[in-house]
Amino acid sequence: MKKLINAVDAVVPEALAGMAAAHPGLLRVDPEHRVVYRAAPKAEGRVALVSGGGSGHEPLHGGFVGTGMLDAACAGEIFTSPVPDQIVAATTEVDRGAGVLHIVKNYTGDVMNFEMAAEIVDMESGIEVATVVTNDDVAVEDSLYTAGRRGVGVTVLVEKIAGAAAEEGRPLEEVARIAGAVNAAGRSMGMALTSCTVPANGKPSFDLPENEMEIGIGIHGEPGRHREPIAPAAEIAKRLVEPVIAELPAADGEDRGVIAFLNGMGATPLLELYLMYGEIAKLLDTAGITVARSLVGDYITSLDMAGCSLTLVRATDEMLRLWDAPAITPGLRMGA
Amino acid sequence: MKKLINAVDAVVPEALAGMAAAHPGLLRVDPEHRVVYRAAPKAEGRVALVSGGGSGHEPLHGGFVGTGMLDAACAGEIFTSPVPDQIVAATTEVDRGAGVLHIVKNYTGDVMNFEMAAEIVDMESGIEVATVVTNDDVAVEDSLYTAGRRGVGVTVLVEKIAGAAAEEGRPLEEVARIAGAVNAAGRSMGMALTSCTVPANGKPSFDLPENEMEIGIGIHGEPGRHREPIAPAAEIAKRLVEPVIAELPAADGEDRGVIAFLNGMGATPLLELYLMYGEIAKLLDTAGITVARSLVGDYITSLDMAGCSLTLVRATDEMLRLWDAPAITPGLRMGA
Repeated sequence: MKKLINAVDAVVPEALAGMAAAHPGLLRVDPEHRVVYRAAPKAEGRVALVSGGGSGHEPLHGGFVGTGMLDAACAGEIFTSPVPDQIVAATTEVDRGAGVLHIVKNYTGDVMNFEMAAEIVDMESGIEVATVVTNDDVAVEDSLYTAGRRGVGVTVLVEKIAGAAAEEGRPLEEVARIAGAVNAAGRSMGMALTSCTVPANGKPSFDLPENEMEIGIGIHGEPGRHREPIAPAAEIAKRLVEPVIAELPAADGEDRGVIAFLNGMGATPLLELYLMYGEIAKLLDTAGITVARSLVGDYITSLDMAGCSLTLVRATDEMLRLWDAPAITPGLRMGA
Repeated sequence: MKKLINAVDAVVPEALAGMAAAHPGLLRVDPEHRVVYRAAPKAEGRVALVSGGGSGHEPLHGGFVGTGMLDAACAGEIFTSPVPDQIVAATTEVDRGAGVLHIVKNYTGDVMNFEMAAEIVDMESGIEVATVVTNDDVAVEDSLYTAGRRGVGVTVLVEKIAGAAAEEGRPLEEVARIAGAVNAAGRSMGMALTSCTVPANGKPSFDLPENEMEIGIGIHGEPGRHREPIAPAAEIAKRLVEPVIAELPAADGEDRGVIAFLNGMGATPLLELYLMYGEIAKLLDTAGITVARSLVGDYITSLDMAGCSLTLVRATDEMLRLWDAPAITPGLRMGA
């Protein structure tokens, strides 16, 4: 195992410390609870957004803390849910009297711990909490760690769009509705050329022969749909576009096109990601799907896995307007 | 070789096409000359900036085309200089009557081809061209492809800071002076955990045993200073910080600190990069060096190499002001 780390059990706290050092103007980190906060808290009366999950998916979630996106992100151990204490601390800290939205990827541990935290917060302080659980991955119906579809790429778009709604001063019920609408309109599919290696395990999570790829992979190295020989990028693009389109909701009213998000898994060069995006754009065009907005890069990664995932969200005018709103975070910066 | 590509000889044009598709509002691509331009050209009377070099270092250079940075970037084949024709086309296209600055990394082929292009432009159209050659890598005195130090990470900072100066309307002589000052104030050092694989070669550029790392590696897989057993991140940080500090110019007047840039080589997870930055920040603090600004991420990569490089620039007030100016590019976005 080749990694830029010290001890395997110190990876998460040390990475959080480095993140705080790298972005002193944007972030502060509570090392005890392993929570990333905005350096400058939001104004009173605004809805706050808390997310979190296992580490190893950076910049998700800590990199999306900042103006226009999250107020706090709780970092679990690598590929392990944060515990309720962390989520309670974050929720209590960021509440500005208007309630808190929890954005949770659909994995059993995450859903359970965020639920438990919401109950504790309700008992302890009466802060109103709403929750959106993202479940956009069409690859598998259930998985190792999930009942129902897994939450993957759409989570980034939910954090951006719901974050903008909160920044505008919308009430909790509205922010939660918008977050739920983005999730409901989003579908994703991923693929891997290589496994990731979890530091504590010291070896690749799975074996993938030199001439094979895995289609439908999860962001923790969970098995996907099938393996097949490595194909040209144009063929790989079809393996992602076709199943996503097949389950993409139809436009409700006038067609505003999609937000297309091609995500790198952590060890995929940007050169290859752009090439893949070119292939995907051609297929979408052929399918009569208009790309209203696009995002290409490493946003929800799986440690050192090589591969990519495609997320499409059927857009509405409201989503596009909130997508274009300013965001000032280490991981995503737009219009400000 | 596992890559998201079609044919090995189509990688660069297809990646450029995908880049154009991904950023229609920011970029346009001339596929014939393989040049990336701003979608909206700069106003008349402003100095224009042209850079370029071998592909495989994305987002450098095409990802830094946009307001506040470059006007055009010429893409060579992977790890191969662009030819003079490309540079002539780009220089002629972006000139707004105030001259053009060429930003060139110090590799023999790049320097020669940019020089030849400047001569052709001078003969053909009389456009004034100034050139800054970056040479910040302290690892080796000469290298496989270079007489003198190699140009690496400081190139990103030169493009940002000189780009801001050009956007302000400074004359060519001033923009060139500022670019030269950033380069002169900058020093870098890189390391690799793994080799990169050039698609046309189909196998890793060099063999690095499972328990070794290479210190002083170049961005094309050129040999560095030495190999040694993999060490903890805190030790690796020393291998980078000490030689950079040893050759870092002293402050000229009052000490404004440094711009610290920790770069990922393409396959390094952001989690590890942040962890490394934390170690580097501690060492700089111990050495009495104040970090005035920091940048952490994949900005000048080496295909799918795992590793990182550190660049420090001894800052002046002028550099910091220009660093903070707005930039709207696919690869780097600041304050706008």
